[in-house]
Amino acid sequence: MGRWEPGARSRLAQAALELFIERGYEATTVADIAARAGVTERTFFRHYADKREVLFGDPGEYNAVFTDAVAAAPADASPLDAATAALRAAGEWFEGRHPYARRRAAVIDAHAALQEREQIKRLHLSEAIAGALAARGTAPGAAALAAELTTVAFHQAFACWVAADEESDLGDIAVGVLAELRALAR
Amino acid sequence: MGRWEPGARSRLAQAALELFIERGYEATTVADIAARAGVTERTFFRHYADKREVLFGDPGEYNAVFTDAVAAAPADASPLDAATAALRAAGEWFEGRHPYARRRAAVIDAHAALQEREQIKRLHLSEAIAGALAARGTAPGAAALAAELTTVAFHQAFACWVAADEESDLGDIAVGVLAELRALAR
Repeated sequence: MGRWEPGARSRLAQAALELFIERGYEATTVADIAARAGVTERTFFRHYADKREVLFGDPGEYNAVFTDAVAAAPADASPLDAATAALRAAGEWFEGRHPYARRRAAVIDAHAALQEREQIKRLHLSEAIAGALAARGTAPGAAALAAELTTVAFHQAFACWVAADEESDLGDIAVGVLAELRALAR
Repeated sequence: MGRWEPGARSRLAQAALELFIERGYEATTVADIAARAGVTERTFFRHYADKREVLFGDPGEYNAVFTDAVAAAPADASPLDAATAALRAAGEWFEGRHPYARRRAAVIDAHAALQEREQIKRLHLSEAIAGALAARGTAPGAAALAAELTTVAFHQAFACWVAADEESDLGDIAVGVLAELRALAR
């Protein structure tokens, strides 16, 4: 098995999720996941620190979906307009990922330690968005609050989206939740 | 040592924090904490599951500070008015606890696992507040969003409060942050 293995990372993610659902999260080992994906354990560890991390992907890549959209928003856009652009971008990124997201959510919902990890992912996303807003000149306090509003809207929307049997437009739901938040705050 | 030990719980919390600061969190054992508090390890485990939990107290008691205030708000108070009452109540509860909170924050900020635990505490608080709002008739979706706004405001305020050398009024800061959130959302 060479060092360069096209798609090994996503095959590992797919294999891990299948095994977590078939055998349970605890009963699945890194060796099982590597075997199912057709790679060595060594390759597994080149991509992920442990079996938990397979469910969480690359935080830098994930956060960049939001922060790139914030950075690309027009210079005169308000923090929450930039946030809206980020919610739309995240909605697009998740397009077609509904079946995977539903299966992943089922595993995470069943394990407190995975829920904790999911919360940390959320915290880091909020910090990344705050950083992107501050970089466009939003004052740090307002940037932190706007970033929290964005992640609250996104996660509330994501919970609805993932709970539905059919895939709907996550961006639409998230922008709707942000509007609800704004109405509530009035 | 009898089963009834007045103040053992708070003595353990105090002893643990002292030792975490003196020796470091990793180097401190449950045996050390029990010895410093003048109780047996058995007593320690009657109060806390492990040394991490000493820093997090009783979640039911903590959440009730907020949820009791939500429940006690006038029937015609809006969700965010009820939230404001909860922020005021929390401010009162933390009165005089500034020195402890500052020392605790220093330990937590230095350990990723403790920060994760702090995030979970925040999640549970948000869920508890959402439940209290729903119990007063707020629709579940709006209750969840209002609860998130409340916890965002509280934690932002708490971070400012704990960072300051002098104790200021946490309730005032939190109500101010909620007002900032509302202004941002407009």
